Amino acid sequence: MKNPEIFGRHRLRHALVAFRPSFRVSYLSFAGYVSHLCYLFYRCIGSAEGESWEAIKADVDRIIVPNITHWQSPNFFAFFSANSSFPAILGDMLSSGLGVQGMMWVTSPACTELEVVVMDWLGKMCGLPSAFLCSESKTGGGVIQGTASEVMLVNLVAAKNRTLKRLHLTNDPNAASKLVVYISNQTHSGAKKATMIAGIHASNVRVLETDPNTLALKPETLEKALLADEAAGLIPCYFISTIGTTSTTAYDPLGELGKIANAHHVWMHVDAAYAGAALVCPEYRHFIDGLEFADSFNFNPHKWLLVNFDCSASWVKNRNDIVDALSITPEYLRNKATESGEVFDFRDWQVPLGRRFRSLKLWFVMRSFGQKKMQEFIRHHVQMATDLESWINADDRFEIAFPRMLALVTMRLKAGNAATKRVYEHINAEGKFYLTHSIVNDTYIIRINIGTVTTQDKHVKALWQEIQVVTGKILASEH
Amino acid sequence: MKNPEIFGRHRLRHALVAFRPSFRVSYLSFAGYVSHLCYLFYRCIGSAEGESWEAIKADVDRIIVPNITHWQSPNFFAFFSANSSFPAILGDMLSSGLGVQGMMWVTSPACTELEVVVMDWLGKMCGLPSAFLCSESKTGGGVIQGTASEVMLVNLVAAKNRTLKRLHLTNDPNAASKLVVYISNQTHSGAKKATMIAGIHASNVRVLETDPNTLALKPETLEKALLADEAAGLIPCYFISTIGTTSTTAYDPLGELGKIANAHHVWMHVDAAYAGAALVCPEYRHFIDGLEFADSFNFNPHKWLLVNFDCSASWVKNRNDIVDALSITPEYLRNKATESGEVFDFRDWQVPLGRRFRSLKLWFVMRSFGQKKMQEFIRHHVQMATDLESWINADDRFEIAFPRMLALVTMRLKAGNAATKRVYEHINAEGKFYLTHSIVNDTYIIRINIGTVTTQDKHVKALWQEIQVVTGKILASEH
Repeated sequence: MKNPEIFGRHRLRHALVAFRPSFRVSYLSFAGYVSHLCYLFYRCIGSAEGESWEAIKADVDRIIVPNITHWQSPNFFAFFSANSSFPAILGDMLSSGLGVQGMMWVTSPACTELEVVVMDWLGKMCGLPSAFLCSESKTGGGVIQGTASEVMLVNLVAAKNRTLKRLHLTNDPNAASKLVVYISNQTHSGAKKATMIAGIHASNVRVLETDPNTLALKPETLEKALLADEAAGLIPCYFISTIGTTSTTAYDPLGELGKIANAHHVWMHVDAAYAGAALVCPEYRHFIDGLEFADSFNFNPHKWLLVNFDCSASWVKNRNDIVDALSITPEYLRNKATESGEVFDFRDWQVPLGRRFRSLKLWFVMRSFGQKKMQEFIRHHVQMATDLESWINADDRFEIAFPRMLALVTMRLKAGNAATKRVYEHINAEGKFYLTHSIVNDTYIIRINIGTVTTQDKHVKALWQEIQVVTGKILASEH
Repeated sequence: MKNPEIFGRHRLRHALVAFRPSFRVSYLSFAGYVSHLCYLFYRCIGSAEGESWEAIKADVDRIIVPNITHWQSPNFFAFFSANSSFPAILGDMLSSGLGVQGMMWVTSPACTELEVVVMDWLGKMCGLPSAFLCSESKTGGGVIQGTASEVMLVNLVAAKNRTLKRLHLTNDPNAASKLVVYISNQTHSGAKKATMIAGIHASNVRVLETDPNTLALKPETLEKALLADEAAGLIPCYFISTIGTTSTTAYDPLGELGKIANAHHVWMHVDAAYAGAALVCPEYRHFIDGLEFADSFNFNPHKWLLVNFDCSASWVKNRNDIVDALSITPEYLRNKATESGEVFDFRDWQVPLGRRFRSLKLWFVMRSFGQKKMQEFIRHHVQMATDLESWINADDRFEIAFPRMLALVTMRLKAGNAATKRVYEHINAEGKFYLTHSIVNDTYIIRINIGTVTTQDKHVKALWQEIQVVTGKILASEH
């Protein structure tokens, strides 16, 4: 960190002005801004005596609020949304107040039991195959994890263990280096990170090409890769399929892919981190046709289902695969409840040991809103996205870049990548709206995701007007 | 889950009575209790229409509160504590309300900047070597992670990568199977779990014996193991030393161990998950003498420093080691702030991608209480533990099992393991106090940890009276 004293008053003022936009996406005087923030923070912490809440609150208003990216703003169309709602906040408050640890059943029975039941109910609400439901199968079950990245990692570790056990290779320290992981070029970056953490060598990670139009993974592409690796003496182990990719919400054909994965004893994980929320509406459940062939499934209610981060809902067909790969019980954690085998200890389903009472917020959201309101919430966002799509289609200067699945619209200027990039950067620099971009198969696209709790039709209309005006200016300046 | 209908009224009532004790450590009619909880939960979730807050709140009072383990009770002496405090709860509330994602600098500048500064201040408040501080070194820095287990894992992944790079073995898929990890038989179970997740084969994890009296790892034990592995063609990689072990708060001699680790290019991580909180008091800093030889250090303010879970404070000497092992930047996460190299993107310091604004609660706690009050908080707990220790020493029937370091007292009956176990189980079954046990080198011990925010002298006195009474009864019944 730079010494704040080297920045004089003028520089500080300049930084303040430059970084006023509500979304903090302006990069003028970048170094100045960073240093300025440090300076402000260093000034307001650090005495040995306690301070009043008024003093702290004043600093929150002065320093924190103006310097965050406003994820809850109706004009936030970037990344995927990170919903916040009043019932979820109440759930987190209660979790903080009770201050219990849910690592094992015995460390707070209600914390585990509520999670078991609420995850089962969420699974039913989303129409998941019964094999994933605790109440309808012998080995299935759901758990709340922190993030989709952690879920990908946990399932990878379980897949490794299951594969080595099946082949009686657990005692061979070199066997793991033969395990191969399959993802597509559209799979979320968390997958690659999971392989790095789990010790899968980069040369054993297959990043498979997708269909250039739909960006879906073709079954024959997966099968070819599996056969090639088997022929080379390697061991296919883990495959991540996606329903609703991050760049464009592409979706893979689960049924055909799943049959291939099953035939080759490969663990198939289905990542629907964003899109899974839409499953509360029956009309979107066709996207998960074939999910019964998968070993695990995950989506994030903390993205688009009114639950505050962190709440990543994860289901597995055989929970013993997970527990077998992650369980360890030192003496100080031994207890009769665990040894009875009648209860779940969720520490064995996740990377961390400790865990908060996260099911409260999911429970509060499901009960406060009810399934109908949750459906209305999703449908309204999809409707707004459909409207935006129709406006884009009706304007000759633009085109939809990739097919829309739910409430993410990907668009570009027909004038090409450079012009599209200029429009994107101009809008973000103005700071009224916040968008993200992506580059897919050399095509520069603007991603417009409609998903915050506060976004209404008027905000989407205002964004569209802004896009039209900025595009007009930029195209004029290029002629 | 069992079908709740198979349980009649009598069985339900029986379950209710059996599990009334406040700490849920009674195991009578265990199956009935589990089924009863499921039944209750299943009854109160699931309508399509939204419900009123009153209905939800009533279920919280009826089902949740009576069925949790009361970690914030003054009579909670089990595990290590999981502090909760009003300023920390306010911090978590604000985090929920703002609903921002701190995965990258650009996704909320203040979220990253505050964390950088607050972690630096906490490091200074704890007297950490300057090499770990962002403001006093070129490559050091602190970050808030979820748990100590995650920190162990992240540092292991970084150590693997650093070791393979140093030896130019990153392109060899089989090289990782030669890496060896060193822990002691007192290291927290999270360490072994980290090796399982990171793909270190069990045969490459050395669980080193400790001194039978102090339970500290002797430097010569580590050195011998390192030399033996090097002689066998293996590659020493990662070593976890502990200050304040979970069973007995034993502490390793950091300086001597660190010099050996450094000489063999082994990453030394120091886990002070519990004990680190005491470093706010200068009189306890001698425990980390020699920490300057370590590569990373971690403690959990969410245990014993008034901050709600999760807040695991982690520092590294060279943050590039971490980022190098964990960073991946897909197109949709690219941005100018990251590319400038002037800011931190904390997603590259941790397992998950998303992250909450956790520094708020640490900031609020540090400012609201101030260092003096935090010191008083720690010192009062240590004083109560010292009192308890003196009472135990003054009663001929008991003995201190292992040396007390801070506020964890380990005790046993001189009558032996069986009697000690009976006393422990009797007290927990009564449900007024909650303790944990451990078995160390075949010695059964009762762990009494004094660390909740609400515990006062009178609660420790009451516990001591209870122990005396129960012991009297049990010894009498044995004669």
